Amino acid sequence: MQKTHVIIVAGGSGSRMGAEIPKQFLHFAGKPILLHTIEKFYATNAAYNLILVLPESHFGAWEEIIQQFNCTIPHQLVKGGNTRFHSVKNGLALVNDGFVAVHDAVRPLVTSNTILNTLEAAFIHGAAIPVIESTDSVRILSDNGSVPLTRSLLRNVQTPQCFDTSILKQAMQQEFNQEFTDCASVVQKAGFPIFLSEGNIENIKITTPLDLKIAECIRTQFD
Amino acid sequence: MQKTHVIIVAGGSGSRMGAEIPKQFLHFAGKPILLHTIEKFYATNAAYNLILVLPESHFGAWEEIIQQFNCTIPHQLVKGGNTRFHSVKNGLALVNDGFVAVHDAVRPLVTSNTILNTLEAAFIHGAAIPVIESTDSVRILSDNGSVPLTRSLLRNVQTPQCFDTSILKQAMQQEFNQEFTDCASVVQKAGFPIFLSEGNIENIKITTPLDLKIAECIRTQFD
Repeated sequence: MQKTHVIIVAGGSGSRMGAEIPKQFLHFAGKPILLHTIEKFYATNAAYNLILVLPESHFGAWEEIIQQFNCTIPHQLVKGGNTRFHSVKNGLALVNDGFVAVHDAVRPLVTSNTILNTLEAAFIHGAAIPVIESTDSVRILSDNGSVPLTRSLLRNVQTPQCFDTSILKQAMQQEFNQEFTDCASVVQKAGFPIFLSEGNIENIKITTPLDLKIAECIRTQFD
Repeated sequence: MQKTHVIIVAGGSGSRMGAEIPKQFLHFAGKPILLHTIEKFYATNAAYNLILVLPESHFGAWEEIIQQFNCTIPHQLVKGGNTRFHSVKNGLALVNDGFVAVHDAVRPLVTSNTILNTLEAAFIHGAAIPVIESTDSVRILSDNGSVPLTRSLLRNVQTPQCFDTSILKQAMQQEFNQEFTDCASVVQKAGFPIFLSEGNIENIKITTPLDLKIAECIRTQFD
């Protein structure tokens, strides 16, 4: 059996939250977002090799959280880089085999189903990401204003983005490029196809105070 | 002063809700979604000419709601068509002057600010719609899989979509086209530019049971 590594990336400074505290440390349902996230992966499979990438300046705060909440989940702590790309690269340096799932720290409401289905798709296809259909109409800005996109063709991208480790490692050797907004874009740029698997609609990225309230609500209603 | 007409379109059968009851009649915060929506416009400006477009088969249920909740807000009731395009057309037949705002019945969390700002932009530019920035990465399906879109260029479209009545009337004379997913796409196809004004992130479209729970939560937290 192949080893599965999970890189949880918490790069954000929380500026969109209007909070001093980094968003991954904000509480919902009684504890920090990041703790929910790491617990979800551990509960899905305790054998995952969990790697947490944090800005070095947040290491102290994280250690305090671990003690305060008696978190005994085994994990490695890695220093983040200047961009998400570089943070993932730092986490990936600890991985040498099997498969790797890269997950946003601020998506605590991912389900075990989404994790397992996306990993399974990566076992088969080499690279897979969870997506959901868009419910809003979407426009794209253009030189003369904006144009509507065909909604039925749009997919909102979530995490964990899952890869054969050798594929992600090869892709991450490319020079950094502003187009690299997620791992899938890096891997696709390197020439590998990306399989789209089914995400879960609750798996929101918590980036605003409203998102935090919504996450709290989802937990309360669906747990 | 020009008259402002508001066409509230409730065409949906609620199939995505998994509910027998049409989604615009589902309750949140103690009353039907549609009642919240109509009250929001009335509270913003009691002089708006409110036009409600419903499938004819729902007229009875709406009358019962009005009686049950003692709703005395003046409004006209119009029979819906086979598509959203045709429903808007039926509502627009009652409008002959001024400006018109077309709103989804299932967006009860629009703010007065969004309504007023979008209308004001329509007064100036002829056609305006509220949008918000996308927080998720988005891909578009292509022949060979999917490609990432540049997130900073994407805007999620909301309602009310606001127009000089003469512009919307002229645009709606076009033959129906599957590309017409909202009024803005119809008006743009007729050659008029669309101004993008700022929506509000709470202004979600309630199309799933999860959306309903989230709407309930937003009301509770932010009212």
